[in-house]
Amino acid sequence: ATAGSSTDCFSIPSSAHLSSMIGRMSDSEEGYDAAHWNSSSQSHPPWLRFHLGISRWQLYDHKDPNLRQLEEQLAFSRIVSAVQKTGGTQLKLLMSFPNYGQALFKPMKQERNEETNHNLYYFSDFERHNAEIAAYHLDRILGFRRIPPVVGRLIDMVKEIKDITTDRKLARTFFTSPVGNTCFYGQCSYYCSTEHAVCGRPHVLEASLAVMLPDLSLAPRRSWRSPWRRSYSRSKLAQWENNAKYCESVKKSPPYSQGTRLVDLIDMAILDFLMSNMDRHHYETFEKFGNNTFLLHLDNGRAFGRHSKDEPSILAPLVQCCRIRRSTLLKLQLLALPQYRLSDVMRASLSRDPLTSIAPLLSEQHLTALDRRLVTVLKKLRRCQEQYNDSVIYNDIPGHLNFGL
Amino acid sequence: ATAGSSTDCFSIPSSAHLSSMIGRMSDSEEGYDAAHWNSSSQSHPPWLRFHLGISRWQLYDHKDPNLRQLEEQLAFSRIVSAVQKTGGTQLKLLMSFPNYGQALFKPMKQERNEETNHNLYYFSDFERHNAEIAAYHLDRILGFRRIPPVVGRLIDMVKEIKDITTDRKLARTFFTSPVGNTCFYGQCSYYCSTEHAVCGRPHVLEASLAVMLPDLSLAPRRSWRSPWRRSYSRSKLAQWENNAKYCESVKKSPPYSQGTRLVDLIDMAILDFLMSNMDRHHYETFEKFGNNTFLLHLDNGRAFGRHSKDEPSILAPLVQCCRIRRSTLLKLQLLALPQYRLSDVMRASLSRDPLTSIAPLLSEQHLTALDRRLVTVLKKLRRCQEQYNDSVIYNDIPGHLNFGL
Repeated sequence: ATAGSSTDCFSIPSSAHLSSMIGRMSDSEEGYDAAHWNSSSQSHPPWLRFHLGISRWQLYDHKDPNLRQLEEQLAFSRIVSAVQKTGGTQLKLLMSFPNYGQALFKPMKQERNEETNHNLYYFSDFERHNAEIAAYHLDRILGFRRIPPVVGRLIDMVKEIKDITTDRKLARTFFTSPVGNTCFYGQCSYYCSTEHAVCGRPHVLEASLAVMLPDLSLAPRRSWRSPWRRSYSRSKLAQWENNAKYCESVKKSPPYSQGTRLVDLIDMAILDFLMSNMDRHHYETFEKFGNNTFLLHLDNGRAFGRHSKDEPSILAPLVQCCRIRRSTLLKLQLLALPQYRLSDVMRASLSRDPLTSIAPLLSEQHLTALDRRLVTVLKKLRRCQEQYNDSVIYNDIPGHLNFGL
Repeated sequence: ATAGSSTDCFSIPSSAHLSSMIGRMSDSEEGYDAAHWNSSSQSHPPWLRFHLGISRWQLYDHKDPNLRQLEEQLAFSRIVSAVQKTGGTQLKLLMSFPNYGQALFKPMKQERNEETNHNLYYFSDFERHNAEIAAYHLDRILGFRRIPPVVGRLIDMVKEIKDITTDRKLARTFFTSPVGNTCFYGQCSYYCSTEHAVCGRPHVLEASLAVMLPDLSLAPRRSWRSPWRRSYSRSKLAQWENNAKYCESVKKSPPYSQGTRLVDLIDMAILDFLMSNMDRHHYETFEKFGNNTFLLHLDNGRAFGRHSKDEPSILAPLVQCCRIRRSTLLKLQLLALPQYRLSDVMRASLSRDPLTSIAPLLSEQHLTALDRRLVTVLKKLRRCQEQYNDSVIYNDIPGHLNFGL
């Protein structure tokens, strides 16, 4: 397959018409064209190579040399535009670079070591810039590669937002705080007010920048309501919280009745349990790839809110369905070994983010929580195997010998 | 003067008609009827004795034996009703006792040792229950007696609010937090939402209870806009902030051109500077006493927000006018002596509040700030005297020899 004809990667030749693009992308085949981003990469900017390298089963290849370049561009490229991004409940900005790359900006709102107030419901929690960054690293370490790359960056709020924005509604919310810091609050449905302003020191602000996915007109996505979605109510429980046999009905309904969708959802639950993210109400897929494709893990800002407590209900899909991909299981077992301890791998991975020079992106308490939660996941899996034997493992590694748990 | 005919105290015989009451109270004379609350006190509940003891120059006498009883009633009397109090921007409740006494309830919203976020403007700051309590003690220690008594109390949110309230709008905002604590948020213009709910542990909540002043129908009050009011804008400055000679014009305008009004305002500025309260936009007086009367220092919840920083602009009335009551000066000088150190007197005074058993109402850092700020006030006064000599002192102690500063 060559660029422009592969249908398992996004091939977006600069001269192609949108209409013909969309036509081509709707067709789909199996197999990942690993040569693709290698062959087409030299003349394209990193963000475009990233878009072109997205495959049916992952956002990027685990050996993709473009990843480092993409991260560097997010971290250091000049910001030429910054406007508010509508949709969602909390403030975020869309930033653009000279090479037409774009990134989603989320500002630091809480001190890194602050734990979420335990009286707040998951749907009232702040979004955390460092959670977005750490989620990307964790997803990559777990071998999922379903979260678009995110880096930390120090932003000059005046030169890189206020002075260059064409968004008047945004510009109007800038002010100077009593101690002389530059602040703004934007317009959104939660926490967009003077009382919750985002402030720099004095005008330098920590933020996360996530690379944007291909435009929806080029690569339409489908949003799926998670069967294990919470009620988003203070008083109501969701169906899965009352019904231990909930998975039986999920297993029978498409798309969970076929292919890897169910084990993909369980992968997502494991990721979310490890980082204690209770806010996974939806997930997305690329329409082009139909139902046989990976799940995008977008919007991770409410992860890593609490290190002192684990939230067992996040594991409900695993506990209720007792299914797991063999590849995921092997990865988890590896990361539980002393020499590949998850916390150590995460610490090393996060240390390459530019913001680490200010302070570690995750406190040691959060790293310790990762190890503790990993043990919990493995324990739950052992209990599953005691109950259901080999049916627990979904063998996604053809030819791989079954050594058991 | 006997009870019922004295017009310098509020005399409210239980049999009197409101209309005749109001008629009597509009007339006024000089002098404080110290015998009044002693003679009429035995058959009245503490709150009524407090109302009857209010004089032209103070809310209560410094030796008033009723004060302790009043505080005890606020702290321990059964709560028979709790409804939201309208007016003002933040949540507060009106509570009633079996003897018909009433108190204004303000809940604990911040941890005691938290400092106000330095990027928040004074008009966005939370109100603090311990500030209301500490302000009452400080005002009393300074000899002003212009703040109605306030005590701390542990409230059972279920039995003492939710179960007894007739306020449906309030009851509807109760919920149980994710960790099982009882929470509510009420209805108001600031901070009345799930995200800012007030939560107990699990249903016990710290709060301040301030005794209510006589009903406005009995004792109408006048509200005065402070000449040194802040702009309540993030960008605009008030007139007094740009004009060093601002006091010249204030001095010439009634009611500041006559009597003690100007030095009373300066007393208030000193109190506010000591406790770092920037939110004194208005003050009140009792209409009955006309212009020659004390100023009520109500609403002190935004004091004691920061101990690490002083706010010199609060002292503008003193610095710009260079006037002070002799009695206030003597009190300040006394409280600067090692044996009567303000922080020590405050610590001892606060220790009689019931909430002290949970934790000190003011941290040592706040107490240290009081001493530091007192030194600043005395320095400013010394500079005034170097400039204006004896004209600085308003001699409110007839016959007292002028020993200078």
